[in-house]
Amino acid sequence: MIRLSLIGIGTGNPDHVTLAAVRALNEADLILLPRKGEAKSDLVDLRRLLCRNLLDDPSRTRVVEFDLPQRDARADYLGAVDDWHESIARVWAGLMETYLPQGGRVGMLIWGDPSLYDSSLRIARRLRSCMKSSMKSPAEQAVEVDRKVELQVEIVPGITSLQVLTAEHRIPLNALAEPVQITTGRRLRERGWPGDTASVAVMLDSGGAFEALPPEGIYIWWGAYLGMDKQCLLDGWLADVAQTIIERRAALREQHGWIMDIYLLARKPL
Amino acid sequence: MIRLSLIGIGTGNPDHVTLAAVRALNEADLILLPRKGEAKSDLVDLRRLLCRNLLDDPSRTRVVEFDLPQRDARADYLGAVDDWHESIARVWAGLMETYLPQGGRVGMLIWGDPSLYDSSLRIARRLRSCMKSSMKSPAEQAVEVDRKVELQVEIVPGITSLQVLTAEHRIPLNALAEPVQITTGRRLRERGWPGDTASVAVMLDSGGAFEALPPEGIYIWWGAYLGMDKQCLLDGWLADVAQTIIERRAALREQHGWIMDIYLLARKPL
Ligand SMILES: C[S@@+](CC[C@H](N)C(=O)[O-])C[C@H]1O[C@@H](n2cnc3c(N)ncnc32)[C@H](O)[C@@H]1O
Ligand SMILES: C[S@@+](CC[C@H](N)C(=O)[O-])C[C@H]1O[C@@H](n2cnc3c(N)ncnc32)[C@H](O)[C@@H]1O
Repeated sequence: MIRLSLIGIGTGNPDHVTLAAVRALNEADLILLPRKGEAKSDLVDLRRLLCRNLLDDPSRTRVVEFDLPQRDARADYLGAVDDWHESIARVWAGLMETYLPQGGRVGMLIWGDPSLYDSSLRIARRLRSCMKSSMKSPAEQAVEVDRKVELQVEIVPGITSLQVLTAEHRIPLNALAEPVQITTGRRLRERGWPGDTASVAVMLDSGGAFEALPPEGIYIWWGAYLGMDKQCLLDGWLADVAQTIIERRAALREQHGWIMDIYLLARKPL
Repeated sequence: MIRLSLIGIGTGNPDHVTLAAVRALNEADLILLPRKGEAKSDLVDLRRLLCRNLLDDPSRTRVVEFDLPQRDARADYLGAVDDWHESIARVWAGLMETYLPQGGRVGMLIWGDPSLYDSSLRIARRLRSCMKSSMKSPAEQAVEVDRKVELQVEIVPGITSLQVLTAEHRIPLNALAEPVQITTGRRLRERGWPGDTASVAVMLDSGGAFEALPPEGIYIWWGAYLGMDKQCLLDGWLADVAQTIIERRAALREQHGWIMDIYLLARKPL
């Protein structure tokens, strides 16, 4: 029997881990650390640092690094993601068989919170039932992994990049009593401002999706490398700062070799 | 000079506090604990417990409990909230003057994350500038408090009830590459399903706002008292479980004297 913990670790500030995450790390027999390629090695370094600093007994917990399969760059995005998840699930399963042939506890350090634009949970569901395709309800997938005693999945929530964005800018996420939309750069470009939502958080933007919006009356709070030493914050009316953000983003990306950024847009005071 | 930390503490599970929250609590000279009336005394108990368990030197940090002013139940919701925030700000200011006449660090334990449907930040902004009404941009309010050296505000992010909901149900918040809306029960009742959003999280529902939706094709994951011993989870197709949830909610509320619940609705597999 394998107990897999997907452990949210926050997005760069090691103090953002929770006591529950510290406990889950220490209870693991095996920690799997994906390497992400040269450019984003900072992100792997942070995970290594957390393991080093938080594991009480490093001789008890085995930390194994592995290379993530690459995602196909083909046009069929959802299909490519599907194949990619499948091959990652196979890699995970192989590592678990190799290092925990008798079963045990596996921990994976998940960037931010495992629920927010992260696929670990979807990959975990495939561990047992790769080949099953006739699922009847959205929840069947979720409980599937639990029905078999051989694999139990547990989620430990973690601080998201969105929470660090709002904390560092000292703003709420929502306008008073108003809804908020969390969306992707791609979607913002394709569909524009979502309905009558007062504020919109944008993640996974490959750069400047906000340019697709008529900027009047929109305020933006932007942040890159949140929680890290190189954290950078900018804010202002979109009409005034859009260009600055695009240029700053390009320069930072050039300088550090990679970038992760996120922003909140609002049409009402927050 | 007053340094005010709004410290997210999660929503019931004491292990959900972050290392940053533990640090911020221990750095405070004064911790202000609002009492919330008899019914919700569990919530105050949890805050007391956190202070007891996490403060290294209780003789150094003064913990002061105070009664929150009541909110007007008048029809003009936003106006009533505005007055209420104003009176809370006055209470906070009075306590800080009384207990920290020379200045110092004040900590406040905020349920979940201070950015999500919480007004502490809006109240904090009034501490210095209650009387100022001519703000020019949404961000002016945010920086206002920092311009005066007398008050500095810091936010420590915390795990939200929404993250505990998804973690406990073992589901993502968003469908793959799709946006998610976070909204209130009131709004869901008034406006229905928000646009073409694949999933919708609903908070602050006084009960059963999902009944306003045509239930076909909607799956619901519901949770009450998340993170606490009395946590209760239900999920299913809305058409099948809506009535059960409404009844369970009423029974739990009766039994415990209060309830807090939250749910995620999805039209696509998560
Ligand atoms: C695959 S998603 C993972 C999100 C993560 N699960 C979370 O909870 O924040 C990656 C996106 O998150 C945002 N992000 C993650 N870490 C960030 C950071 N430290 N600074 C700014 N944005 C970040 C960016 O929008 C990035 O494109
Ligand atoms: C005023 S809002 C505060 C939210 C909080 N800042 C957070 O981050 O979760 C209160 C609402 O949050 C949700 N909530 C808070 N704690 C909860 C809990 N332990 N279980 C279920 N829902 C909770 C409920 O929807 C409730 O109506």
